[in-house]
Amino acid sequence: MSNLDAKLRVQTRTQIASLQRRLGVTTVYVTHDQTEALTMGDRIAVLNGGILQQVGTPREMYDRPANVFVAGFIGSPAMNIGTFDVKDGSVKVGSASVPLERSIASAIPDGDNGKVTLGFRPESLDVVSSGTPGSFEVEVNLVEELGSDAFVYGSLKGDAADVDLSAGDTNQVIVRIDPRGVPDKGDVISVSIQAGHSHVFSATSGERLG
Amino acid sequence: MSNLDAKLRVQTRTQIASLQRRLGVTTVYVTHDQTEALTMGDRIAVLNGGILQQVGTPREMYDRPANVFVAGFIGSPAMNIGTFDVKDGSVKVGSASVPLERSIASAIPDGDNGKVTLGFRPESLDVVSSGTPGSFEVEVNLVEELGSDAFVYGSLKGDAADVDLSAGDTNQVIVRIDPRGVPDKGDVISVSIQAGHSHVFSATSGERLG
Repeated sequence: MSNLDAKLRVQTRTQIASLQRRLGVTTVYVTHDQTEALTMGDRIAVLNGGILQQVGTPREMYDRPANVFVAGFIGSPAMNIGTFDVKDGSVKVGSASVPLERSIASAIPDGDNGKVTLGFRPESLDVVSSGTPGSFEVEVNLVEELGSDAFVYGSLKGDAADVDLSAGDTNQVIVRIDPRGVPDKGDVISVSIQAGHSHVFSATSGERLG
Repeated sequence: MSNLDAKLRVQTRTQIASLQRRLGVTTVYVTHDQTEALTMGDRIAVLNGGILQQVGTPREMYDRPANVFVAGFIGSPAMNIGTFDVKDGSVKVGSASVPLERSIASAIPDGDNGKVTLGFRPESLDVVSSGTPGSFEVEVNLVEELGSDAFVYGSLKGDAADVDLSAGDTNQVIVRIDPRGVPDKGDVISVSIQAGHSHVFSATSGERLG
């Protein structure tokens, strides 16, 4: 459907989905567009280099990705994913300490040198007032307005020497914000990760922990 | 960019936008994809059949579309647009009465036979408990889960004989809902339009009123 224009693509997607549900025919649909997979599929299988990564409902794939590849693939814009130090059972993200559940902290493999790969989606970040405990700072590089939503593309500030956010740009953090009242380029906003909405993976194998 | 896969398209969009801002070169970008126009443009011009419809910032185009064409073109999924009767200064949408501002009610042309075209975006609808004053009922036909959001595609219930929702399917209403706790096909949900988030157009000319 990539050759349809944007509006027709959205309409065709829902038409194919409702046609398939009405006919009740088991259908295998192959796509590179994860939005199509999420919206049209009852179950999704993600393959990478011919290797099956995960099978599940759209909700399972979104809420509990099995590894870093699935985490980065499902969701638009992509999940923020970075490798951070763990100290005293908390992940150090910029100036923030994100506490780990004990079951996750104890599952970190010895070979990972006290690091984990942490993922958090753009919509799982709340903009908070400066200095709020557990928040970290993001310098705004670009604001993308979609009308219904707006996304800040920013740089993680603070002690980020060992941060390697892997979404293409080092240190880049994407934050979904309210489209009324967007910050300007160069502004610094404080954000915190909503409780229970972080994803923790092994820094070496990329497999989900806990 | 329609030949790029979905993830790369989002990345390329932000890269072109930040490149353009860094170089400071005035750029005209022609696209059928309104998401690209919204996210990359400082000002957008919408053309239809060679006729200029509206020029403005992305926010102006989104918040105050000049006519029905722009209203339906900007935004994804598209704005719900229908033609409804006006009685006693209120628009009758299913079982709901949506009050019109006096300046808008007095601007309805005589030739429009007491009808207006009303638009309301999927994210401007709140799901409320059944029977809430000002709400109308929508029967769920399809739920589209995007992970971060979910959209209900439903049918407007009630006295809808003279309703002609023009988004392709008669009577179709699209509602953005919280992705945790989506309704099932066949469920009936009550929704109300957020105050100040409806768009009123002439039923004949399609021009914005008021």
